Amino acid sequence: MSGNTIGRSFCVTTFGESHGPAIGAVVDGCPPGLALSEDDIQADLEPRRAGQSKHTSQRQEPDRVRILSGVFEGRTTGTPIGLLVENVDARERDYEKIKDRFRPGHADYAYQQKYGFRDHRGGGRASARVTVATVAAGAIARKWLRERLGLEAEGYVSQIGPHRLAGTDPASARSNPFFCAEPAKLPLLEEYLKQLRRDGDSIGARVTAVARGVPPGLGEPMFDRLDADIAYAMMGINAAKAVEIGDGVAVAGQRGTEHRDELTPAGFASNHAGGTLGGISSGQDVIVHVSFKPASSIPVPGRTIDVAGDAAEIATTGRHDPCVGLRAVPIVEAMLLLVIMDHVLRHRAQCADATSPTPVITR
Amino acid sequence: MSGNTIGRSFCVTTFGESHGPAIGAVVDGCPPGLALSEDDIQADLEPRRAGQSKHTSQRQEPDRVRILSGVFEGRTTGTPIGLLVENVDARERDYEKIKDRFRPGHADYAYQQKYGFRDHRGGGRASARVTVATVAAGAIARKWLRERLGLEAEGYVSQIGPHRLAGTDPASARSNPFFCAEPAKLPLLEEYLKQLRRDGDSIGARVTAVARGVPPGLGEPMFDRLDADIAYAMMGINAAKAVEIGDGVAVAGQRGTEHRDELTPAGFASNHAGGTLGGISSGQDVIVHVSFKPASSIPVPGRTIDVAGDAAEIATTGRHDPCVGLRAVPIVEAMLLLVIMDHVLRHRAQCADATSPTPVITR
Amino acid sequence: MSGNTIGRSFCVTTFGESHGPAIGAVVDGCPPGLALSEDDIQADLEPRRAGQSKHTSQRQEPDRVRILSGVFEGRTTGTPIGLLVENVDARERDYEKIKDRFRPGHADYAYQQKYGFRDHRGGGRASARVTVATVAAGAIARKWLRERLGLEAEGYVSQIGPHRLAGTDPASARSNPFFCAEPAKLPLLEEYLKQLRRDGDSIGARVTAVARGVPPGLGEPMFDRLDADIAYAMMGINAAKAVEIGDGVAVAGQRGTEHRDELTPAGFASNHAGGTLGGISSGQDVIVHVSFKPASSIPVPGRTIDVAGDAAEIATTGRHDPCVGLRAVPIVEAMLLLVIMDHVLRHRAQCADATSPTPVITR
Amino acid sequence: MSGNTIGRSFCVTTFGESHGPAIGAVVDGCPPGLALSEDDIQADLEPRRAGQSKHTSQRQEPDRVRILSGVFEGRTTGTPIGLLVENVDARERDYEKIKDRFRPGHADYAYQQKYGFRDHRGGGRASARVTVATVAAGAIARKWLRERLGLEAEGYVSQIGPHRLAGTDPASARSNPFFCAEPAKLPLLEEYLKQLRRDGDSIGARVTAVARGVPPGLGEPMFDRLDADIAYAMMGINAAKAVEIGDGVAVAGQRGTEHRDELTPAGFASNHAGGTLGGISSGQDVIVHVSFKPASSIPVPGRTIDVAGDAAEIATTGRHDPCVGLRAVPIVEAMLLLVIMDHVLRHRAQCADATSPTPVITR
Repeated sequence: MSGNTIGRSFCVTTFGESHGPAIGAVVDGCPPGLALSEDDIQADLEPRRAGQSKHTSQRQEPDRVRILSGVFEGRTTGTPIGLLVENVDARERDYEKIKDRFRPGHADYAYQQKYGFRDHRGGGRASARVTVATVAAGAIARKWLRERLGLEAEGYVSQIGPHRLAGTDPASARSNPFFCAEPAKLPLLEEYLKQLRRDGDSIGARVTAVARGVPPGLGEPMFDRLDADIAYAMMGINAAKAVEIGDGVAVAGQRGTEHRDELTPAGFASNHAGGTLGGISSGQDVIVHVSFKPASSIPVPGRTIDVAGDAAEIATTGRHDPCVGLRAVPIVEAMLLLVIMDHVLRHRAQCADATSPTPVITR
Repeated sequence: MSGNTIGRSFCVTTFGESHGPAIGAVVDGCPPGLALSEDDIQADLEPRRAGQSKHTSQRQEPDRVRILSGVFEGRTTGTPIGLLVENVDARERDYEKIKDRFRPGHADYAYQQKYGFRDHRGGGRASARVTVATVAAGAIARKWLRERLGLEAEGYVSQIGPHRLAGTDPASARSNPFFCAEPAKLPLLEEYLKQLRRDGDSIGARVTAVARGVPPGLGEPMFDRLDADIAYAMMGINAAKAVEIGDGVAVAGQRGTEHRDELTPAGFASNHAGGTLGGISSGQDVIVHVSFKPASSIPVPGRTIDVAGDAAEIATTGRHDPCVGLRAVPIVEAMLLLVIMDHVLRHRAQCADATSPTPVITR
Repeated sequence: MSGNTIGRSFCVTTFGESHGPAIGAVVDGCPPGLALSEDDIQADLEPRRAGQSKHTSQRQEPDRVRILSGVFEGRTTGTPIGLLVENVDARERDYEKIKDRFRPGHADYAYQQKYGFRDHRGGGRASARVTVATVAAGAIARKWLRERLGLEAEGYVSQIGPHRLAGTDPASARSNPFFCAEPAKLPLLEEYLKQLRRDGDSIGARVTAVARGVPPGLGEPMFDRLDADIAYAMMGINAAKAVEIGDGVAVAGQRGTEHRDELTPAGFASNHAGGTLGGISSGQDVIVHVSFKPASSIPVPGRTIDVAGDAAEIATTGRHDPCVGLRAVPIVEAMLLLVIMDHVLRHRAQCADATSPTPVITR
Repeated sequence: MSGNTIGRSFCVTTFGESHGPAIGAVVDGCPPGLALSEDDIQADLEPRRAGQSKHTSQRQEPDRVRILSGVFEGRTTGTPIGLLVENVDARERDYEKIKDRFRPGHADYAYQQKYGFRDHRGGGRASARVTVATVAAGAIARKWLRERLGLEAEGYVSQIGPHRLAGTDPASARSNPFFCAEPAKLPLLEEYLKQLRRDGDSIGARVTAVARGVPPGLGEPMFDRLDADIAYAMMGINAAKAVEIGDGVAVAGQRGTEHRDELTPAGFASNHAGGTLGGISSGQDVIVHVSFKPASSIPVPGRTIDVAGDAAEIATTGRHDPCVGLRAVPIVEAMLLLVIMDHVLRHRAQCADATSPTPVITR
């Protein structure tokens, strides 16, 4: 399989490139009977749209999604749901100059060596533009999980360059262009990004997402652990370079007495683990952090080679994001929801009959 | 699929529990014609064996592997390779007292709620003991990749608690019980672990692994990226809580001018990316870091609940590792090799015909 | 996985219903560099189109295919190929009367009990209309296999009701509405079908397809045999009830001395096996026969039940095929090509290095 | 994937060769809590054992199965079940003479060309001996389906060469060496097989299996139909050349008025379809027929080529079955059960919430 499908029971296959006619997804395995409209999906697409603030790419894409199949009289039928988003504002000319040379930090060179040639327009399949399909699919998972399990996933930017950002008000994250959940820091960020643009540079970021209401028992013991599948999904997002569950990299410095989350009849005493034990959900909040590298497409010129292997120079003047991590929040949420949805279905395939004498402890 | 298979072209399915009669793996899809003996595999099993120093569990397992199929007259036939390791030193009585209560930080509670009951002996399937099968499978990948591509993967412990450890002498890592590649730090570590045991506590660790000689072009563009599959594989190792590629979490604080690895005809000018671009190998070293939490099984008592949900106390006195990260090095190497092997085969399935006019740049 | 994907290396996922807005496919894993245009695919869609003779459904669908992704400057890029065919001539009113009752011999009742409700318009996802996506995907496989391996697949109708039809002139099959390769029988068939329509009845059929130029070695030894995957693909076609390889059901009456195909340096002495040995291609022609049941939608009234389980009567007056097997020929060809394509890629994933000292015998 | 795994939710991976040390299976995804012992599995292995009558191979294998994992205190835990059967009576010398030449009608030549070389002892992985693992896995499916759904599957030989055999007394099939369910024909068969051995020849056979108690709604609409997966499973059995569902090949000669199974509140009026509609189970008996070719290993000499491609002659004098179809009955049953089991789990993954207002009609 060439790798454009995620999930085993709730399977999402996507297609499309930055500058092709359209981007789409096929969602296969959705339970029947879910009320679903194009507006339901559209609501999730808005936050990841570019061109909405001066801090993101100025490409103007309406990102209107069409449901092509799998929904009848307003409800999912159980057959595959075809989703389509047309590309509208694709400017090929922006990319003429990179046709024959590779942008450092981009997939250009790797694609060239893998396939022998490449669609250079906007990075082709490697563009973050194509995640519109993933987010659309995630919206379906979100709706089902919310309605059937009361499960919610919410993300925010927890770091931009040198600035750590707390998740004090997660609900506010979607109302500002930085997906920042610490409103007091907004003026600081505004100033920081402004300076960054003046420098012609870009910056990395870290995104945190939390899923609440995850039932215990999701995930498989060996390879397909819930956290392993989350790591796979997150590292598959453009520019992601690290995935952490719970305390993440900090655990390397922790002691057992400090890390282990004690259990009490009233619930876990802490959540260093981030919601999984042995790779299986514990019923606590599932917490994931994803670190995104700074965009490599910047006006500051850099060294590179051309298709013939000769030295060249490159500077990007097209429409790009100074901080790609900002727009990653809806994608991280979608990925988290897709993985959880898949495991909810997988779990009931095998364990629908299992009943435990142990009460589910409350957080 | 219940999640005990890794890989799509080079597929490894494992089975077995800590205290069952045996642990095994089926390696399906191995290219035919590889010279392979039980000794070849045994060599990779030795480093992860317990009971070899006072810093690891004292369980004594010979870990003798048998090849049950797929090899004829010393060569792989292309049919599945069955591997078996008998459990010898399993002491059930050590676990009687945890039969009815859940060890904090372990999978006990999660398994109970998933399956309705659990094999409590040594953690059952959740024990790190079962990774012997993964390492055995990895040995086959290692041999093929070395012989056909000259590809090598090597790991070491890069952090133990507060101590950061450099990879100055990677070859030395297998010759000390800490898998430490900075020999000057060995006395310090010896002392540190001694004190830890006196405290009845455990400590986290970080492991770094590097694959050299990875050809460019491995990995798929969308979900099954090389780094995504590495993240999946690594997060699937017992106690792993974070996976980083290249500069990892540090990228959140980097600028584009700093992070992007410029290309020159003589090679990449740096390797912040850790060997992948857009999820596809660039030909540079693939670098991965995995953070492991401290073992939760420690003599210091902790709060928990029992199977009925009532409050209880627990302290572990069985044979356990004070720093599970130490023995993870061979597992991290095996996982890295399994993922690369799988992608080598997947790549040639689709792209065996592709030829690029661009020369492969030298590192 | 909800079952709308076929293939492991060359993966085709389809979506769409008879009366939805569009039908589509995502072809994932196509080798890069294949010259491909919409016209290339269109050529394969024509033969399965309805409404072209009085012997098939009178629904008028232009079946214009659009390539939405995966092709750049006329060549496949290696990324997923999105294909879309809009539904144009969907008449919902034809189906109002079957909204609440189940057509015998159709999937109506089974869908109802599986999903709890169903898209009743034209059978929804169960309609043969959706095979347009499969045939479109098959056209891509056909082109690659022809250009790279000189491999061809050709089908014809080998039985219609009581009439057995020889494959004397396979090339002529596409030039008549019966996909008949025995031109002398055309007047007989014309008369037979005319009478059938007068009777308000339908008839079964058997389709034979032959793939020539299949290299030896395709298929896996155990479950994913080439013939097993062909059987899976063919039985997945609407109305298929039997799949035979080579001599098929006749082998139950054969002796070993009669059946076994002797080998000589000049080639196999016969081809009772139909091109596979132990499930792996032998290099001989791969021969498959598929038997299709008669269409159940006929004007002759029949007994049924309604959604509430009460007795009802039904007669079909919409646009239907009196012999669904006729239009199955392009689908059988497409399925055969998809399976072979997938196995060509799978085979080279594992065995690209293998070389046999034995010469490939000539047929 | 090299093809040694069957199923997506209930996944069986097998390994082993005719003359290797052992044959085994890993059953992944079994629901937890099933009472399971080695004796439960052994009971299903007995009927397929060779050497039990003069009509089958005289190889003496006790076929004792060991459960290596996945069962704790007599119940399945939900983790993978490792099964192992040691080979005991493997005589390598029988095969020395076929080391360098290919047996016509066997996989020898195809394996050679696929892998470059082959394990020639007893056909290696291509031997029907390896189906012991499939049957062992099938026994687990049988037990779960019987206990949870009251579902049963039963097979018998419905044709041996020229003799058609009715299924008048299916229960009697396991009590005679011909798996014949028409007891009156036993003397005839005894005589027929005796003469066949005298002729040094072999004969084909057809096996019929029926699953009773299959709930409606199993199977997926497009490719992974229940009947398609059955066809795949059956065609994957050694020597199978045709798979028919319900009326099978006869449907090509049937009219719609004859074939369509009318529905009444009391049940379907007939079962020409064989239990599936649109590929999804209807709740009727699932009926499948599999045609097996005659064994190619016979004392009558035949032409062949050797590894160098030169003409040679071959005659088989080792231990073989004159009618391989006889011993296929338990394998057909196992395959049918494995496919149904997989679809029961898959179905509830997606559709556990679906409820239909339509009553399930009684057969």
